[in-house]
Amino acid sequence: MANLQDISLSAAINLLSAFAFLIAFAILRLQPFNDRVYFPKWYLKGIRSSPTRSGAFVSRFVNLDCKTYLKFLNWMPAALRMPELELIDHAGLDSVVYIRIYLLGLKMFVPLCTLALAILVPINWTGKLLERQHAKDLTFNDIDKLSISNVAEGSQRFWAHMAVAYIFSFWTMYVLYIEYKTVAAMRLRFLASENRRPDQFTVLVRNVPPDADESISEHVEHFFCVNHPDHYLTHQVVYNANKLANLVAKRKSLQNWFTYYNNKYERTSNKPTTKTGLCGLCGTTVDAVDYYAAEIQKIEQEEVAEREKVLSDSKSIIPAAFVSFKSRWGAAICAQTQQSSNPTLWLTEWAPEPRDVYWDNLAIPYVELSIRRLLMASALFFLTFFFMIPIAFVQSLANIEGIEKVFPFLKKILETPSIKSLIQGFLPGIALKIFLIILPTILMIMSKIEGFTSASSLDRRSAGKYHLFLVVNVFLGSIITGTAFQQLQTFINAPPTEIPKTIGVSIPMKATFFITYIMVDGWAGIAAEIIRLVPLIMFHLKNTFLVKTEEDRNQAMDPGSLDFPTYEPRLQLYFLLGLVYSVVTPILLPFIVIFFAFAYMVFRHQDC
Amino acid sequence: MANLQDISLSAAINLLSAFAFLIAFAILRLQPFNDRVYFPKWYLKGIRSSPTRSGAFVSRFVNLDCKTYLKFLNWMPAALRMPELELIDHAGLDSVVYIRIYLLGLKMFVPLCTLALAILVPINWTGKLLERQHAKDLTFNDIDKLSISNVAEGSQRFWAHMAVAYIFSFWTMYVLYIEYKTVAAMRLRFLASENRRPDQFTVLVRNVPPDADESISEHVEHFFCVNHPDHYLTHQVVYNANKLANLVAKRKSLQNWFTYYNNKYERTSNKPTTKTGLCGLCGTTVDAVDYYAAEIQKIEQEEVAEREKVLSDSKSIIPAAFVSFKSRWGAAICAQTQQSSNPTLWLTEWAPEPRDVYWDNLAIPYVELSIRRLLMASALFFLTFFFMIPIAFVQSLANIEGIEKVFPFLKKILETPSIKSLIQGFLPGIALKIFLIILPTILMIMSKIEGFTSASSLDRRSAGKYHLFLVVNVFLGSIITGTAFQQLQTFINAPPTEIPKTIGVSIPMKATFFITYIMVDGWAGIAAEIIRLVPLIMFHLKNTFLVKTEEDRNQAMDPGSLDFPTYEPRLQLYFLLGLVYSVVTPILLPFIVIFFAFAYMVFRHQDC
Repeated sequence: MANLQDISLSAAINLLSAFAFLIAFAILRLQPFNDRVYFPKWYLKGIRSSPTRSGAFVSRFVNLDCKTYLKFLNWMPAALRMPELELIDHAGLDSVVYIRIYLLGLKMFVPLCTLALAILVPINWTGKLLERQHAKDLTFNDIDKLSISNVAEGSQRFWAHMAVAYIFSFWTMYVLYIEYKTVAAMRLRFLASENRRPDQFTVLVRNVPPDADESISEHVEHFFCVNHPDHYLTHQVVYNANKLANLVAKRKSLQNWFTYYNNKYERTSNKPTTKTGLCGLCGTTVDAVDYYAAEIQKIEQEEVAEREKVLSDSKSIIPAAFVSFKSRWGAAICAQTQQSSNPTLWLTEWAPEPRDVYWDNLAIPYVELSIRRLLMASALFFLTFFFMIPIAFVQSLANIEGIEKVFPFLKKILETPSIKSLIQGFLPGIALKIFLIILPTILMIMSKIEGFTSASSLDRRSAGKYHLFLVVNVFLGSIITGTAFQQLQTFINAPPTEIPKTIGVSIPMKATFFITYIMVDGWAGIAAEIIRLVPLIMFHLKNTFLVKTEEDRNQAMDPGSLDFPTYEPRLQLYFLLGLVYSVVTPILLPFIVIFFAFAYMVFRHQDC
Repeated sequence: MANLQDISLSAAINLLSAFAFLIAFAILRLQPFNDRVYFPKWYLKGIRSSPTRSGAFVSRFVNLDCKTYLKFLNWMPAALRMPELELIDHAGLDSVVYIRIYLLGLKMFVPLCTLALAILVPINWTGKLLERQHAKDLTFNDIDKLSISNVAEGSQRFWAHMAVAYIFSFWTMYVLYIEYKTVAAMRLRFLASENRRPDQFTVLVRNVPPDADESISEHVEHFFCVNHPDHYLTHQVVYNANKLANLVAKRKSLQNWFTYYNNKYERTSNKPTTKTGLCGLCGTTVDAVDYYAAEIQKIEQEEVAEREKVLSDSKSIIPAAFVSFKSRWGAAICAQTQQSSNPTLWLTEWAPEPRDVYWDNLAIPYVELSIRRLLMASALFFLTFFFMIPIAFVQSLANIEGIEKVFPFLKKILETPSIKSLIQGFLPGIALKIFLIILPTILMIMSKIEGFTSASSLDRRSAGKYHLFLVVNVFLGSIITGTAFQQLQTFINAPPTEIPKTIGVSIPMKATFFITYIMVDGWAGIAAEIIRLVPLIMFHLKNTFLVKTEEDRNQAMDPGSLDFPTYEPRLQLYFLLGLVYSVVTPILLPFIVIFFAFAYMVFRHQDC
């Protein structure tokens, strides 16, 4: 186990790396050619249309003004200066509330940290249990001296821990209560102050029962005319138009090529040519502008035909509809009440915003939904507790001998000593790494199968699943060493009264591990986040190779929506760690506080 | 353990005792002086006003017509003949649905019983495991030979049990599904066919927030005028009128005495006298009619004063109101929707029928409700698992020596050998008996503390609590011998994987116990129910000692509402036993079927 020196060293390294990221960020963000990566929202809103500084050709790409480098940290106060209301306008309510979670972390843990350091650390330090046991050759370190382990069993000092645990709990609940109240008020203010939008007057109706005499559209119309005569305005049935959507996407891509060649023609006055085959690489050479104009026309005709087919074919109507009302009151009434004596028919809910609808799930009937949710719940259980089994299986296959067996022609290359050692060091971890990278995607697919109808509810469900996975496999997995499957066996075969004992013994022992985890995953991870490495690389790659028109560049900018289902569960893990260790090993709290403070500043900047 | 002969004997005894009750019933119900006990509903509806037969004085009390005794079982077909719709009209929807539970038991268990006897019993019987082990001096009985214990471990025969268990489960779920559908349809038909009643247009609003400028009545009026302008009709605030209710009850009693003495005066023409002191036993003698007339007038004045005080005093208004709407649609909308952005204020629900309202709980605020429910949940836990502790304590106190110590003057009587042995045999069980008798009352008080606002919801909650108690203390308590507290310790200290094993070993062993339980508690208990022993005794006691006027006699009749919170949980226990033993010891099923058939007939008669 690490002692205080190791921890300090690690902290210094991580702080330095975080600092290095910050300097890199400060330099990168001042380069005009990165402007679109770091200020995408300004561009998309049309406030900025090109890098602020103009002048010589070089300075369009590299910032040569030395003075600006000296003030390289001046984004920090600027990031905090924007008032909340303006921020809502600028980045949206969701982002602002998300950032408030970091602020909540600060509000929660700064008082906890102060109190714990002032009361518990002295009490633990003077417990002197470990020093007395030192004679018995027990190994311990400085962190342990500051933790609850240093107090002898049955000591009167535990009353202090007891009292502080209650104070912490009540403080946490109080802060959560206030925060919930504030966010609820913000949401209501936001809803009330918005411009009129159709989805405020609209309800999504699902499970429209089939009717022998009427089409779905007529049935919906009659049903709401009878049941909500004073408020019903109109309705829109939902069509299954997947084929049409494909055609539209194809036309968009062709349109883009057309603009590209047209621009090229206007600039160079040379008629550009292209080939008709795969990706313009093979086939007969033709005039590009004419070719794409003809292609676009052809696909537009196909679109019209398909659209008519969808509209006229009653089979392409799915049993769901968006029903609009004359007033928000009428829509609220319809969304909140049961419409039919059979509670599985005519299900109503507030319509999601149009861009938020997840169209594929609108047609799922009620019984199928229940079955899907049951299946996904058990799938999640197996994924959480048994994911190591397929990975161990892949790992056992992915050794040098296995690869040589399947691909004998690689044998010569693989037997080269340097390559062999590289692969041998690299292979065992790679299956797990790949799994962890694609895990949020897997969870999102599972949420889609569960049948939620809006993208935001899909996000929330995926986040919940990921949080469960992290708690079981990172938190419990680190405390009770072994895979989740082994833990499950322990819990099933041990009496329930043993579980608190096992966890109680392990938690103080793992404090140093989690301190390191917070520094590596938290501090350095957040600093890496601020330079937006992935968007930075992606933008320049796209800009160099793919961007053909102004519209393409706008798309390449990627204002970077917060990847909610990935970030939020990890954040929750820090809350969990902080609360669990607040009484046991209070020295962990400052690390949590630094994480929240740093992350708050970074994400506050990302939003601007 | 009992063998097949013992069980047969016990069955015969119980059937005979049930038969004896039936004969007793057949004789008692034909006696005119019991007419009001067995046909109370006819009297209350005014169809019958005096026993059907008239004639000599003796025959007003005893039925001397011998022919009617010969047809003593003719109530049975008559009980089944009344069609369901008429029965709803006669006994109410609740009673009819309650009786359908017995019918559901028959629908569920008759096919199960047939299938189990046809398939599982032969398979178990030819298992011959126990006979082979007989050489090893293992004791077993004939019941065990028919049960799953007779099949060797790992035998292929268990596939049959497995398949049958699935068939039973699906059949049960199917029957429940159909029953739910039928009852839901019955309820809707009942609601739709009813006459207009005010509670159909009314919503109960609770947690009306205080307002600085307006009274509660004005606040409610303004709130609903603004939020439901098209549908709001009127409202009625709720007054805290407990004192007034006491006065009214007192006046009713005085009125009753007045009528009694007036009748007496008219019959005998002697001025009856009474005394002014306690219960008319001491004090000065006065003219009774004049005295009660004066008393009634006095209390009427008090009532008027109190009513005015309640109406004028704003403190006696509690923050709840009954809000009426112009249409059932408007009331439905208000009852189902959230009224305020704060989800703990302006809580709306359908108003219970006026006679169903439990007035004492209308004023409880939201937060207090949550706390009360939490407290009652933990109280229920302790009551269920630790009720033996206070009872054991009382039992340890309640021995002869303890009583002699507290009441030394009783020593001489208690030392008489016959009395001593009586008390010693009687005392240990009495604390438990008393507890079990008052248990439903305790559970009802707990439900009242939980803060439900209607008598019917109180009934449902009490029934749920009683069911939990029965499952833990009768079902589990018989399977795992020992008190519930000891079971809890077993479950906590044993690994979870051991629990199915423990239960799996015990269940087949306890089959004979539960067969006896069904016969004693079920068969004989239901037969005792049909002679309505308690109402019979109570009616005659009241009629002899208390009844003074015709109105009193009507009250004494006691049409006997089904004591739902006591009967329904016991019924559920039979369902549980039947389902648990259906595959394990199929021979238990016929006993369950007989119980349901018999109980169905008896309760069907009680409803007529």
